[in-house]
Amino acid sequence: MPKDIIIDCDPGLDDAVALLLAAGDDRVNLLGVTTVGGNQSLEKVTYNARAVLGLAHADDVPVRAGCPRPLVREGRVAASIHGDSGLGDVELPAPVRPFDPGHAVPWIIDTIMAREPGSTTLVAIGPLTNIALAARLEPRIVDRVREVVLMGGAVHTGNSSPVAEFNIRTDPEAAHIVFNEAWPITMMGLDLTHQALCTREVQAGIDALGTDLARTVSKLIDGYRAAYRQDRAFPNPPIHDPCAVAYVIDPQVVQTCRCPVDVELQGALTLGMTVADLRGAEPGPDECHTQVGMQLDASMFWQMVTAAIEKLG
Amino acid sequence: MPKDIIIDCDPGLDDAVALLLAAGDDRVNLLGVTTVGGNQSLEKVTYNARAVLGLAHADDVPVRAGCPRPLVREGRVAASIHGDSGLGDVELPAPVRPFDPGHAVPWIIDTIMAREPGSTTLVAIGPLTNIALAARLEPRIVDRVREVVLMGGAVHTGNSSPVAEFNIRTDPEAAHIVFNEAWPITMMGLDLTHQALCTREVQAGIDALGTDLARTVSKLIDGYRAAYRQDRAFPNPPIHDPCAVAYVIDPQVVQTCRCPVDVELQGALTLGMTVADLRGAEPGPDECHTQVGMQLDASMFWQMVTAAIEKLG
Amino acid sequence: MPKDIIIDCDPGLDDAVALLLAAGDDRVNLLGVTTVGGNQSLEKVTYNARAVLGLAHADDVPVRAGCPRPLVREGRVAASIHGDSGLGDVELPAPVRPFDPGHAVPWIIDTIMAREPGSTTLVAIGPLTNIALAARLEPRIVDRVREVVLMGGAVHTGNSSPVAEFNIRTDPEAAHIVFNEAWPITMMGLDLTHQALCTREVQAGIDALGTDLARTVSKLIDGYRAAYRQDRAFPNPPIHDPCAVAYVIDPQVVQTCRCPVDVELQGALTLGMTVADLRGAEPGPDECHTQVGMQLDASMFWQMVTAAIEKLG
Amino acid sequence: MPKDIIIDCDPGLDDAVALLLAAGDDRVNLLGVTTVGGNQSLEKVTYNARAVLGLAHADDVPVRAGCPRPLVREGRVAASIHGDSGLGDVELPAPVRPFDPGHAVPWIIDTIMAREPGSTTLVAIGPLTNIALAARLEPRIVDRVREVVLMGGAVHTGNSSPVAEFNIRTDPEAAHIVFNEAWPITMMGLDLTHQALCTREVQAGIDALGTDLARTVSKLIDGYRAAYRQDRAFPNPPIHDPCAVAYVIDPQVVQTCRCPVDVELQGALTLGMTVADLRGAEPGPDECHTQVGMQLDASMFWQMVTAAIEKLG
Repeated sequence: MPKDIIIDCDPGLDDAVALLLAAGDDRVNLLGVTTVGGNQSLEKVTYNARAVLGLAHADDVPVRAGCPRPLVREGRVAASIHGDSGLGDVELPAPVRPFDPGHAVPWIIDTIMAREPGSTTLVAIGPLTNIALAARLEPRIVDRVREVVLMGGAVHTGNSSPVAEFNIRTDPEAAHIVFNEAWPITMMGLDLTHQALCTREVQAGIDALGTDLARTVSKLIDGYRAAYRQDRAFPNPPIHDPCAVAYVIDPQVVQTCRCPVDVELQGALTLGMTVADLRGAEPGPDECHTQVGMQLDASMFWQMVTAAIEKLG
Repeated sequence: MPKDIIIDCDPGLDDAVALLLAAGDDRVNLLGVTTVGGNQSLEKVTYNARAVLGLAHADDVPVRAGCPRPLVREGRVAASIHGDSGLGDVELPAPVRPFDPGHAVPWIIDTIMAREPGSTTLVAIGPLTNIALAARLEPRIVDRVREVVLMGGAVHTGNSSPVAEFNIRTDPEAAHIVFNEAWPITMMGLDLTHQALCTREVQAGIDALGTDLARTVSKLIDGYRAAYRQDRAFPNPPIHDPCAVAYVIDPQVVQTCRCPVDVELQGALTLGMTVADLRGAEPGPDECHTQVGMQLDASMFWQMVTAAIEKLG
Repeated sequence: MPKDIIIDCDPGLDDAVALLLAAGDDRVNLLGVTTVGGNQSLEKVTYNARAVLGLAHADDVPVRAGCPRPLVREGRVAASIHGDSGLGDVELPAPVRPFDPGHAVPWIIDTIMAREPGSTTLVAIGPLTNIALAARLEPRIVDRVREVVLMGGAVHTGNSSPVAEFNIRTDPEAAHIVFNEAWPITMMGLDLTHQALCTREVQAGIDALGTDLARTVSKLIDGYRAAYRQDRAFPNPPIHDPCAVAYVIDPQVVQTCRCPVDVELQGALTLGMTVADLRGAEPGPDECHTQVGMQLDASMFWQMVTAAIEKLG
Repeated sequence: MPKDIIIDCDPGLDDAVALLLAAGDDRVNLLGVTTVGGNQSLEKVTYNARAVLGLAHADDVPVRAGCPRPLVREGRVAASIHGDSGLGDVELPAPVRPFDPGHAVPWIIDTIMAREPGSTTLVAIGPLTNIALAARLEPRIVDRVREVVLMGGAVHTGNSSPVAEFNIRTDPEAAHIVFNEAWPITMMGLDLTHQALCTREVQAGIDALGTDLARTVSKLIDGYRAAYRQDRAFPNPPIHDPCAVAYVIDPQVVQTCRCPVDVELQGALTLGMTVADLRGAEPGPDECHTQVGMQLDASMFWQMVTAAIEKLG
């Protein structure tokens, strides 16, 4: 039986691939997509979410726009990586669906509360503003969610700063809220996602599908590759966000480590760091509600992604 | 024409007096009351709000419970001042109205958005959690509110710490959100409210009304007086919260000073301080959206309060 | 019997007046002058200290240069107030004494340790770097010093920031060290020193002395007046530093309030604030080793300063 | 030609081994030993330093006691690891040399300034209080020191906290001073020193020397092993401090990585973390004055240590 998921995202080039993976793999059922200001402005990422779901023939999946800015800090975007539109230079067909004016946060709450306890997985691949607000407005969702799987953070090396990752650093207070609630959390941080490198071989495999969608994805990756090369000297770009979806589809794709994780809100050098306590023996699930992805089966991961693109046709 | 107000509160002994003042003075029209965890737990303060409005023959005024805890920090209550119930030892008649399960935050948003721009004044006399969440969920309320008048903060001397006041210190991130939005804010901090001392003469004036309600208020004040004497060595208790309502009723009762105010989120000694910049000349309303109450006309203030109690019968 | 004092300073226009007061009043005996980077670079303030002592016919008073920069933070100077030289536009006669290469910190330690316990008063009117280092290198000085009287800090309103004063803000870690050692501390903060305004009348009194020195002092004050007018909109400049010397000469000139004081090292808005706890009853000297100047007898203060200038001839 | 070193330490079980290595290896020449409060009180660690040098027939090596406590924060000791005496349960013969009352900091300064520029290596294996004070009191030592090699910090996982190591966490402000001066710094953090595990085989090799000194060292290690097992669940104890000495003796024993390192002074979770920037390509020595030990040649390391013990007889 497929797992029911809500994806909270800020597309974003890698978010787009995550949406396609979710739409194209039968092992997950996409209940809806919510958006949050992050890689680009809320307006742009919401447009992009609708356009990407259009590409995926998923116009029936609800899309709701959420918070345009972080809880406390000033907003920031990642235009040097995701471009002015949020999707690099690729222009997707305009979304056909109308814009839904309802707000993401009550939609998340209502969806979770209306469904069976333990049946909804939250996949959060942008700043955690919407998720944090939902937990504060309706604390009962914490017990009803099956799991929160998020892309964000870094145990060892960051990108926004030496030790902080962009999504968490953008809204550290929201992340602090989410990590300190008792729901099971699996964090796909940079330690993991920097293993999801789209090599030339991987991209050639996508190209070989020969479909329009594959060509579009390849163009998105071209932009991402160029941006990562120029901005951060990566020869191949890490496709962060689909890692979270892939883990929900099949946990075998990621080896995790259970450890306490908290978010630094005060540091002059470490603001927004996901501080993991890796000292001592690994705790059990009853002692510790957080785990961190450490090792990616990159081959399995890219097979999943490629198969989903193929399936969407 | 009366001013339309929403009171967001955590009754609390002085909140109770603020509600009575609002209910008993024709110059304000109480659109509704929302509650927030603060002086006591959300459950208790919501019960108290309903009970106090019952006393005031105001059972038609909507009451909605909001956030049980601060945005980011752990909650704290002020039981040493407000007792285990939130209203000292006074047991009010149980509220007759049913509990309304709707959440305060969407109610605040919907009420403001449904009404004329500039027609609603937010009177916030507890931690600012609900107000901050409303501003984040629906940023358009910031332009539609007439003014935010709040009890909280201190320019010079605090109570929760040497320089921080309880409401702001309880949820500093929420306060930071509220003070950094562009709406007009008038802050009634401890500099002002420590002038609202309920002396024996003032209390005798209330007693002299001879009504049941006056007797109940006097008992509430007895408990408050005892708590302030024991916990903080005040001979007469400062009745903080009605200052905010009194200012809305008639701004003449408070002399204000316009100055930038921001909230400290990082300090080891100063966390939750409302940092006012009193250097240099006083800015104009166009340059600065925040003002601080500095001088109370205590005689006028207590006449207002006593008259309201009298009017409620 | 005169009180033996060491002045640690960063002249600085008001430091110059403080040195003249100390040199010209028989009730204090100036054991030596040490310098610290602050209002201007260490090199400049040391030159100025030697030149001012030359003016005061005090070339026998030892001068030792100390720390060029704060303990932890980057240095900063106050050129907008004290000019490029540290003494505005006034060019004093070059010092005749040779520069002594010994370091201030061991000199402070050795002087205090060589003298009777309880006989030396430290008057610190710059950033507290030297004093803090001396206390860390030789902890026994803390018990041997009679008192630390310092110009710095602010209970209510700052100058470097809304709540922090320049000397403390420049080296907050040093100030934290000094305030947390057990010696008696009297702090002359901005609350006090902003009452030491050099009005036109005061300056006319100095002019009326008719001496070369009086003319030089008046020129120094002219520069200070112009700078304070332009930079901070003060009609008359506050002559901060002599307040500390005046208090040592005769404590009657300042009314103090005893209260715990600590220094904020973490605040985003409050870094370097001297946080005084003014809640509750004033503690006794056995309970609290810090006191703060609150009320200046300005008339007595200016008489002292004028008399000292007169006496120096 | 041997390298001239000063060891600043807080013995401490592993400090003791570091002193023996320095005394027993001809490739370094121990100019002197200075002590600092850390693993135990200054009094105890100074006694221990003198006693260990006695064991090593190095009673001619000067020992000077330095700072008893950190610059700003309260002191802390590591009695759960190093015992009440600082050397576990091992009682060494009392030192025969008299206690020298001179302070470590001027001794460090004078020694460095009296010698050829570039000829002195500072090996700092305790909290960095003394070294920081020396750099502030005499800034010229920064250019005259050949290199600072220190045991402290952690790039990835801490011991005092999830991300901070004991020496740096004990005096973070001192560490901040040291890391921000321009001298070449090689940091042997926990990433490296947790590879210096004294296995049963290693200890058997020491035992096999059959000398009195070897037996004493083995007893010290027994205590350390027991403490690390009980307190931190390590089967074999990491012998941190000799790694710094070993690197000076022969840099081949440690593979380093050049990267910027700074010290967090503000973090709620990360205070005292040595924040290394491992993003991007490794900078050259001209761009970056700090490097971090990442890979230990454990076999070579233990051969050095064992040979030194053998040589000392």
